[in-house]
Amino acid sequence: METFRMKENPLRALWREGATAVNGWLTIPSGHSAEVMARQGFDSVTVDTQHGMIHYDTALECLRAISTTDAVPLARVPWNEPGIVMKMLDSGALGIICPMINSPEEAAELVANCCYAPRGNRSFGPTRVMMSVGPDYVKNATDLVLVIGMIETRKALDNVEAIAATSGLDGLYIGPSDLSLSLGLTPHQDSREPVMVEAIDRILAAAKDNGLAAGIHNASGAYAREMGEKGFDLVSVGNDTLLLAGAARAAVSGARGNGASGGGDPGGGY
Amino acid sequence: METFRMKENPLRALWREGATAVNGWLTIPSGHSAEVMARQGFDSVTVDTQHGMIHYDTALECLRAISTTDAVPLARVPWNEPGIVMKMLDSGALGIICPMINSPEEAAELVANCCYAPRGNRSFGPTRVMMSVGPDYVKNATDLVLVIGMIETRKALDNVEAIAATSGLDGLYIGPSDLSLSLGLTPHQDSREPVMVEAIDRILAAAKDNGLAAGIHNASGAYAREMGEKGFDLVSVGNDTLLLAGAARAAVSGARGNGASGGGDPGGGY
Amino acid sequence: METFRMKENPLRALWREGATAVNGWLTIPSGHSAEVMARQGFDSVTVDTQHGMIHYDTALECLRAISTTDAVPLARVPWNEPGIVMKMLDSGALGIICPMINSPEEAAELVANCCYAPRGNRSFGPTRVMMSVGPDYVKNATDLVLVIGMIETRKALDNVEAIAATSGLDGLYIGPSDLSLSLGLTPHQDSREPVMVEAIDRILAAAKDNGLAAGIHNASGAYAREMGEKGFDLVSVGNDTLLLAGAARAAVSGARGNGASGGGDPGGGY
Amino acid sequence: METFRMKENPLRALWREGATAVNGWLTIPSGHSAEVMARQGFDSVTVDTQHGMIHYDTALECLRAISTTDAVPLARVPWNEPGIVMKMLDSGALGIICPMINSPEEAAELVANCCYAPRGNRSFGPTRVMMSVGPDYVKNATDLVLVIGMIETRKALDNVEAIAATSGLDGLYIGPSDLSLSLGLTPHQDSREPVMVEAIDRILAAAKDNGLAAGIHNASGAYAREMGEKGFDLVSVGNDTLLLAGAARAAVSGARGNGASGGGDPGGGY
Amino acid sequence: METFRMKENPLRALWREGATAVNGWLTIPSGHSAEVMARQGFDSVTVDTQHGMIHYDTALECLRAISTTDAVPLARVPWNEPGIVMKMLDSGALGIICPMINSPEEAAELVANCCYAPRGNRSFGPTRVMMSVGPDYVKNATDLVLVIGMIETRKALDNVEAIAATSGLDGLYIGPSDLSLSLGLTPHQDSREPVMVEAIDRILAAAKDNGLAAGIHNASGAYAREMGEKGFDLVSVGNDTLLLAGAARAAVSGARGNGASGGGDPGGGY
Amino acid sequence: METFRMKENPLRALWREGATAVNGWLTIPSGHSAEVMARQGFDSVTVDTQHGMIHYDTALECLRAISTTDAVPLARVPWNEPGIVMKMLDSGALGIICPMINSPEEAAELVANCCYAPRGNRSFGPTRVMMSVGPDYVKNATDLVLVIGMIETRKALDNVEAIAATSGLDGLYIGPSDLSLSLGLTPHQDSREPVMVEAIDRILAAAKDNGLAAGIHNASGAYAREMGEKGFDLVSVGNDTLLLAGAARAAVSGARGNGASGGGDPGGGY
Repeated sequence: METFRMKENPLRALWREGATAVNGWLTIPSGHSAEVMARQGFDSVTVDTQHGMIHYDTALECLRAISTTDAVPLARVPWNEPGIVMKMLDSGALGIICPMINSPEEAAELVANCCYAPRGNRSFGPTRVMMSVGPDYVKNATDLVLVIGMIETRKALDNVEAIAATSGLDGLYIGPSDLSLSLGLTPHQDSREPVMVEAIDRILAAAKDNGLAAGIHNASGAYAREMGEKGFDLVSVGNDTLLLAGAARAAVSGARGNGASGGGDPGGGY
Repeated sequence: METFRMKENPLRALWREGATAVNGWLTIPSGHSAEVMARQGFDSVTVDTQHGMIHYDTALECLRAISTTDAVPLARVPWNEPGIVMKMLDSGALGIICPMINSPEEAAELVANCCYAPRGNRSFGPTRVMMSVGPDYVKNATDLVLVIGMIETRKALDNVEAIAATSGLDGLYIGPSDLSLSLGLTPHQDSREPVMVEAIDRILAAAKDNGLAAGIHNASGAYAREMGEKGFDLVSVGNDTLLLAGAARAAVSGARGNGASGGGDPGGGY
Repeated sequence: METFRMKENPLRALWREGATAVNGWLTIPSGHSAEVMARQGFDSVTVDTQHGMIHYDTALECLRAISTTDAVPLARVPWNEPGIVMKMLDSGALGIICPMINSPEEAAELVANCCYAPRGNRSFGPTRVMMSVGPDYVKNATDLVLVIGMIETRKALDNVEAIAATSGLDGLYIGPSDLSLSLGLTPHQDSREPVMVEAIDRILAAAKDNGLAAGIHNASGAYAREMGEKGFDLVSVGNDTLLLAGAARAAVSGARGNGASGGGDPGGGY
Repeated sequence: METFRMKENPLRALWREGATAVNGWLTIPSGHSAEVMARQGFDSVTVDTQHGMIHYDTALECLRAISTTDAVPLARVPWNEPGIVMKMLDSGALGIICPMINSPEEAAELVANCCYAPRGNRSFGPTRVMMSVGPDYVKNATDLVLVIGMIETRKALDNVEAIAATSGLDGLYIGPSDLSLSLGLTPHQDSREPVMVEAIDRILAAAKDNGLAAGIHNASGAYAREMGEKGFDLVSVGNDTLLLAGAARAAVSGARGNGASGGGDPGGGY
Repeated sequence: METFRMKENPLRALWREGATAVNGWLTIPSGHSAEVMARQGFDSVTVDTQHGMIHYDTALECLRAISTTDAVPLARVPWNEPGIVMKMLDSGALGIICPMINSPEEAAELVANCCYAPRGNRSFGPTRVMMSVGPDYVKNATDLVLVIGMIETRKALDNVEAIAATSGLDGLYIGPSDLSLSLGLTPHQDSREPVMVEAIDRILAAAKDNGLAAGIHNASGAYAREMGEKGFDLVSVGNDTLLLAGAARAAVSGARGNGASGGGDPGGGY
Repeated sequence: METFRMKENPLRALWREGATAVNGWLTIPSGHSAEVMARQGFDSVTVDTQHGMIHYDTALECLRAISTTDAVPLARVPWNEPGIVMKMLDSGALGIICPMINSPEEAAELVANCCYAPRGNRSFGPTRVMMSVGPDYVKNATDLVLVIGMIETRKALDNVEAIAATSGLDGLYIGPSDLSLSLGLTPHQDSREPVMVEAIDRILAAAKDNGLAAGIHNASGAYAREMGEKGFDLVSVGNDTLLLAGAARAAVSGARGNGASGGGDPGGGY
């Protein structure tokens, strides 16, 4: 709303209260589907410019669509590169989820990309976000922006405690598909594999020990809930492509009167 | 496929075999979501340029996306106007679902908009469809294109037998929301109201008596199946906006561990 | 906001209090510029799909952008055609400004295009607006939607009292450029020509006598204010193209240190 | 160019000198391909929003692209409807080619849609064209805008002398595919059929007798040249889709070392 | 097609049979022109996001358009950066042509960007490609994805045998314009310069000696055929911009009846 | 214009005459607003793909829009990365303004990204710029392209003389907001702070001593003029977002009859 002036990322307040934020995930390059998603009760919605079918020009539409609601806009960037990280922040993302943070050095580089001097080297020019958040954006930028690194390789797991100790980092986010792949398993989510469960617990502990938020991507609401109960602060469930495909297959099956799914299996998780 | 050469609308073959076609319905203006929908097992997919958030420039992307699959591309036009009807056909739609056909005169005008001389006055220029269907498109256009009028007002119901007798018309499609509204009820779908059931039966009979296909929009797969069993040839289930919203609300509820829906109720039916 | 549920068009409340609504006018086909405009303090913002460089696919982005603020979204349609009128309403416009309403019959047709049965024949399918306004949209549609006809020809002026008496019409909006052109003058706004002043007064009186809102397009804030003081309820000032061009010319002149304007004169008013 | 100020449509000057204008034809919805076409030496370039894969939002990009060159921008509209005709003119088209003008009444309606009062009822708001042409656009609009009706049915042929006598009409344009279809032939261009040759001659004579420009669509440069020598003022050759497809097929054949065309046959003419 | 399930890149099968693949090249940012190109008989079509006027958001449309045919979708990336390489693969490209691979280290980095662990570090999230190729995409990714490095500098030429020995690399592709420029010549294609012929032969030999596919960009079909006969496996001919411009210039010349080209010379080769 | 053939960047000629170029700045992702800006008398117009809401796909539209005028098209890139730098040059930018050039090494890398061999390693493929500038583009590329590094950190200031001595660099451009932030001040423009004035003077001197153009971003025309008088060669004033927002706020205030600004304060400078 035009009179709204935000001083802190609302997820921080939510986490202070001990709540788990439920996060939506966007891969369809459309402001309309972004608005549909943002209006379904998520606490935050992430525009995925890595594996989503979205790059900057459509990400901007998605971020604007999220701003029609109270959901907190986040963005996953394709890579830890200053150009796209800073563009997403200027465009209204109140947090960056960055893939493949494998070392404390990479985590520090991410923090530098996300923060103004003296904390980092983010370039100044908050063209849209100063409108959507308000004129005090720059003053409050540290409290408004969440810097979240993804832990999704064996190397990252080995370094997770050091990564979690990175000054300026706000959270760790587990990409279970990549992590399972890197650990020698087939890529999957909602894992019960002991090696994955152990890895998840270790990452969660590293986050908690360093006062960071812990997040994880999930395939199902049930597993997401379980993760929330385990202590995760940010739980995502699938993405819009998967939700739409699943609902459409169910509709087809219902109309045909059989239980068989009628079509392709869209690409999966993270 | 580039070597594919179609001589007849595949829905005609399906109907000759007595099958019910299950139809997907697009309202999200994105080729990606259109492709996701088209790959879930629908027999046909309709690009809705009336109540969908889609106009020509995005409809073209949706039609192209459907062409990556075997689903038959159809289009609902905003109104019975020659400009948009002919553009959708040139762009690859193999059938037009036209709202608010209330009289045999309007039905005849729709036929004229959809057919080349001497049957109608469709202008010649099948820029994309001659690519997607093949070089014999013009020769086979009558067999390829489905001309479907929507019966969704009291006036249309009163005229339904005369409408159904219109030469060149291929089908009737019931818009239950508008029809219920016009009959003095609150707009709804999947109706059990006697007045609606009677209207549906009358429209179905008018179609069958004239050798036309009968179609109906449904909110649920179960009702769609029931309509198929009753004799309907084309049953649609919801639309992509509603499917996505419903699946997202369910995901949020699952992650929160409650049954309550978390957000807005997106706009409904037809 | 996602929890917001609107029962009445906020402009109606504002007008009950005797206030004049200041209206922004969009002609740039971009959600970003739409959001910039919507955040500058206008009570309402109109997406102009007639003389603006905007058609449906970009109008949807503009309507969504306006929804990030409290400004009331309105749309001017290219013509009094059911297809586009209904699409703009389904997409979130809470009012239609329709050009060239020259007779009570045309006004009645406009009302019919904007209202559900039994008042009119708007087709049911509020895909986006039921999200942006809330689930009770249909129940409150009459109070939410403003139906505004433009008075901008000699014929319309001759018929203005009859037009104003049209049941279901909510407002008259003066297009001074077209009206002056039709009255044999060069097209202009902010007129002091006696024949135009007389016409404006007559239209205002016709509106007031019938309990309608009266609106007028203006070139300058000063004239707009004068019109508000005269009794107009809705005053627009220029449009985004003209505002941007004027500000840019002033910047160039300032940087060059001369008073001369440095470039082209973008197309004018309405 | 920003300092350019046009007082008359350059095609009028060219025609006074007895030259034949060679016209390019756009069907690809892209400003880039439009610019490529406009830079190849055409005197004018027509954005086809009827059978082209282009509607308003992409037509605007094409018109802007043509403005990077000296080629005269024209537009074919989908139908004789005031909304789209006026939008194309406001957006920079310096001429309208309108399909299916079958009677003097329809021709007069087209003139009215294209001209300001008192000649017609075009609404005032030349948002882009006043920039691209200059501030005197309105004063010179009659000399700048070409109003061209398509003669492409048997009925139009029967009425062609009366149509050609319509006050304010600037030209006739033959759509050979539709005309041949309407005359009971298979749709084709570059015709040698006596009935078509006779029709073409009659239309050409009607234009010349009334001081109108005569235009025709052609499949090949050779036939276009022949038509120019016969007296036609405006000759179009194919369109960008067909040119691209033909060149690509030739490239494939060349690379494969055979004469056989390698692929589909894109949809044809007008 | 929705039931199609690919296990291996079709170009691999074609190459096993000793055939030369003819490759189309896209630079126009439009799904329509992409579909037109893909339907003309090319074995594969490459979306050029380096020198083409295409970035991610339009590349996605092009990849989807190619999926309406049997042509194999490939992508040239702007640079050897993980973000864009992985996005193109997730979006449906079945091969990456990467510019400026000048050393075995750069080749190894490219392989790493294109392959899942343990072979590389491609992040998991095949959102579209798992739909277009089928659910076994991940299992077969190594056989499905072609990793092709461009040899186009003197340094690359000096290192070509070592580059060709890079594990996981599938092909070398010659960019003659850059290579000639780097060798001190004016940039050109279809070269007969001895230094270029020698370089081409050396690169071809390095590819063959290491079991790699060899590709080359050509200006003409005739030279492409010659290269195929010489042993190249993948030959591209010009691009859509050049094909369209050439065909349009020829049409203008034909219509004017002279041999002179009528316009600009669009930017060339690679 | 299609017959225009440029041999040198027009800003170089202007600077030889001792004039100051006034530069417009684009952040709205729309070809229409870009054209509006380009027609207001600026000598050059910069497409900002760093802090502007513009990435490649919309930048291309902006560059094309600028080509409808005589203004020189420039681009600011998000970062010193070869992919995007080369794409902007291929697409028609006649100069690159690159952020965060902090050392002579980074300046040399920028030069390499902008120049063909032997000067640099820009890849060959001037797809659009060879059309917009003419067939001799490559021969004249060094004279046509401006390579401009931004000085906007303390480190850059410390290195400014060495940076300015970089072979192939054409200009320095001051980003006052980032520079003030890096110098420990609040980010601002149009500075009178002694530390900033001293820094500006030092950068200006370094440029002049090395024969480079000096540029600076300004918030107001008055300060821009002052900088021109001080010796700066390129002065930018605000950007389109800020100009539009300011003009809209003034319009609202004028219409309301108060001096208070009515809304948000859009994000600021550079």
